[in-house]
Amino acid sequence: METALHSHTEIIAVLVSDSGSRHLRSLAGLIPSGARILCTTDRLFAQISGTEAPQGIAALLRPHVATFDDLVCGTPLVVIMAGLQDPGNVGALIRTAEAFGATGVAACIAGGTGTANPFGPKALRASAGSALRLPILRGITAPVLLAQLRVAGVRVYAACPDDVRSDPGRHLSCSPHEPLAPWDVDWRAPSALLMGNEGAGLPPDLVRSADAAVRIPQAYAGVTPAPVDSLNVAVAGGVLLYEAARQRGLT
Amino acid sequence: METALHSHTEIIAVLVSDSGSRHLRSLAGLIPSGARILCTTDRLFAQISGTEAPQGIAALLRPHVATFDDLVCGTPLVVIMAGLQDPGNVGALIRTAEAFGATGVAACIAGGTGTANPFGPKALRASAGSALRLPILRGITAPVLLAQLRVAGVRVYAACPDDVRSDPGRHLSCSPHEPLAPWDVDWRAPSALLMGNEGAGLPPDLVRSADAAVRIPQAYAGVTPAPVDSLNVAVAGGVLLYEAARQRGLT
Repeated sequence: METALHSHTEIIAVLVSDSGSRHLRSLAGLIPSGARILCTTDRLFAQISGTEAPQGIAALLRPHVATFDDLVCGTPLVVIMAGLQDPGNVGALIRTAEAFGATGVAACIAGGTGTANPFGPKALRASAGSALRLPILRGITAPVLLAQLRVAGVRVYAACPDDVRSDPGRHLSCSPHEPLAPWDVDWRAPSALLMGNEGAGLPPDLVRSADAAVRIPQAYAGVTPAPVDSLNVAVAGGVLLYEAARQRGLT
Repeated sequence: METALHSHTEIIAVLVSDSGSRHLRSLAGLIPSGARILCTTDRLFAQISGTEAPQGIAALLRPHVATFDDLVCGTPLVVIMAGLQDPGNVGALIRTAEAFGATGVAACIAGGTGTANPFGPKALRASAGSALRLPILRGITAPVLLAQLRVAGVRVYAACPDDVRSDPGRHLSCSPHEPLAPWDVDWRAPSALLMGNEGAGLPPDLVRSADAAVRIPQAYAGVTPAPVDSLNVAVAGGVLLYEAARQRGLT
């Protein structure tokens, strides 16, 4: 609730239950004058909130609609979610993107698969509020976004599982070039990281439209078949964004 | 199911529903001769399995009980989960630990808080089968494990949130020394990574018994209060284990 009030999103209304009204005084200075205060019973509030132990106070807000230009301000480091279906992963990736200085996130449709709503309750909670602060672009397909990024001079890196090395056929369907290790990418230049669906990964034609593929080397290299298919998508995104942030000079 | 049969865990029985019996032929070679085959109806199977679209075949297995010595074989890289309560995080961290070459994982009680069962259905699924392959030590408290690791010559690094820098009081309660950046730790030496509870973090006395604290620098450094509390625990573990694996010579 406090995260919502501190964010730059538009607060339309504040919903308060009988037992939640005690929070109103401490938050009063943060509630914009244009917002309506709606009162309800504890029972009705519990039904609406969808959490196990609701605080009794909730904000109804209109998320900021980001444009393409919002995503690429400064030296762009854009995260493209192409068909990520688990809202927990979507939220965790947005949280990680903010922590490592990404300039924005795009939630795209790829190969007919949409990305879970970043502003849905589960994703918003997993993002620890980052979804209300970081520019998030929606309603765009991945191929259209990749074309726009190319025009803007942003290089796109497609995240591929490490096992492309042990399966040459899969390697070729993934990328026409040998995938790069994270430390071989120059992340200080304008960059975008393309992450695919949890199960199916990225559609091969989307990987081919990227500038390069990037893989996270794993410790079982050389063992065939690799015992671990790939990392969890939020963990893989975290590792790649950490590498980007490290190169950009975190201290 | 195939992961279970390929792992080195003891298969006690195989449970098959009417519609799952078609899988029996293809898996027959993998089922050990000592295992009982139990048949049931689709309806009863669905109630037991707890998944949305059960395959109709399940293995009842006894997870391998790892000893302390299993964890520290070779050049130890041990992950200590001290009070991690979300089974999804426990599973994701075990999956990541295997991918980056950890020698074992310990699921500990810390400050009165237990760690979620790594062999529970949600953790096992999130581990993508890694919980059946990697040595996992249970039933030990974190202080006892830290004492054993010290005797074995393994250095313990406590993972701390990055905001310890912007809050000196918290810093002192977290560690008597300035926390190290991931790249300032020599992970090629015998090492253990200590990860705490999702909300409360690590108990301060446990951090003080570690050899050093390690923090993951984040992009908002200098902004007070930091907009992101800390990374998701599985993402933070992924970043630190990636750094360890990178130093140990992944290619």
